[in-house]
Amino acid sequence: MRMSELSARSGVAIPTIKYYLREGLLHQGEQVAATRAEYDESHLRRLRLIRAMVEVGRLPIAAVKKVVAAIEDESLPFHHMLGTAHYALSPQVEPEPTPEWEAAKAEVDALIADLGWQVNPEAPGRNELTQTMARMRRLGMGDDIRKYAEMAERLVREVDLDAIPASDDRDTAVEALVLGTVLYGRALEALRRLAQESESARRFTPEGPDQPT
Amino acid sequence: MRMSELSARSGVAIPTIKYYLREGLLHQGEQVAATRAEYDESHLRRLRLIRAMVEVGRLPIAAVKKVVAAIEDESLPFHHMLGTAHYALSPQVEPEPTPEWEAAKAEVDALIADLGWQVNPEAPGRNELTQTMARMRRLGMGDDIRKYAEMAERLVREVDLDAIPASDDRDTAVEALVLGTVLYGRALEALRRLAQESESARRFTPEGPDQPT
Repeated sequence: MRMSELSARSGVAIPTIKYYLREGLLHQGEQVAATRAEYDESHLRRLRLIRAMVEVGRLPIAAVKKVVAAIEDESLPFHHMLGTAHYALSPQVEPEPTPEWEAAKAEVDALIADLGWQVNPEAPGRNELTQTMARMRRLGMGDDIRKYAEMAERLVREVDLDAIPASDDRDTAVEALVLGTVLYGRALEALRRLAQESESARRFTPEGPDQPT
Repeated sequence: MRMSELSARSGVAIPTIKYYLREGLLHQGEQVAATRAEYDESHLRRLRLIRAMVEVGRLPIAAVKKVVAAIEDESLPFHHMLGTAHYALSPQVEPEPTPEWEAAKAEVDALIADLGWQVNPEAPGRNELTQTMARMRRLGMGDDIRKYAEMAERLVREVDLDAIPASDDRDTAVEALVLGTVLYGRALEALRRLAQESESARRFTPEGPDQPT
């Protein structure tokens, strides 16, 4: 197909497609004449993936580039490629050089080891959790973190990973991972708040739900 | 105590305390001389609460005012007051006048009814979930939303609500609700990502965890 059709079918504007081509996020089409290139389904798939990362995952272009490089490096095993995309979705938190940080970090490391989780020492989620843990400890909270960890494990085992459809196509697999992680995360956050309202109504007002002002 | 001691003990700068007094977020101290007011533990508790809402909950001052008004209206039952704070923590999502929105909204309403959850028609979580649901449907996802809802219910019943310590003091109860909802939400998000990495390593690489690049 021509670029105009690629634009129409993907919903991505032509100047944006040209920008992605220049940046190397989208592979070049097949040059069929001096002024005409042909694009195919692989370009459509890549554009869908880029939109998922930019619009739903809110990743900066630099992070998108890293993920695209991992997809295109065919020597990189499938699981490593997915891991690169997964890490790109985590907030990057810098460690703080304080005793509180070290104490919280030790707690997080011990928790992960206790649960037998297979998590890289460099996983960004470790710093992300350490930051929240340090804040909780300062406020006298966090004693029940293990119960949350066990719930997260159940969620991932019983529901989360099954929601990501398997695909042999590298672009499609990464797209499913990004959309699944971000959108189900957002849904879960809203569902948690709705369930909190319901459970709180049940516990504190035997006569039924309330109307907060 | 004097304002200088209130500032030292709360960690809130004097100009900020004066701003809160002007805005009516913090109640006036007892005027013991023409130029001197005395503050007490209730001022300390209120400042702790305001900090929790602003720094951890990232609420705008207008939302903080609404919560403070609910705390100070003693005719408002305890549960309604907590509901006001809980709603303030939800992202405010505007409904879209599209058939996709209506279809997603109907799905969300049916899900909540099916589960027997006691949730107000105006709960902001409904619109928040509808927005994500509409996006999922457009992408051919969302069939397993009920499993996420059941997991959220379990999480709230078995863990979440117990983590919020009960307090008869209105300021302290709202503070616990805000910190508990926000910080455990953040911890859960990080734990979910760590558990995903671990479970994915377990499923896809029998030899152990990987090193994404």
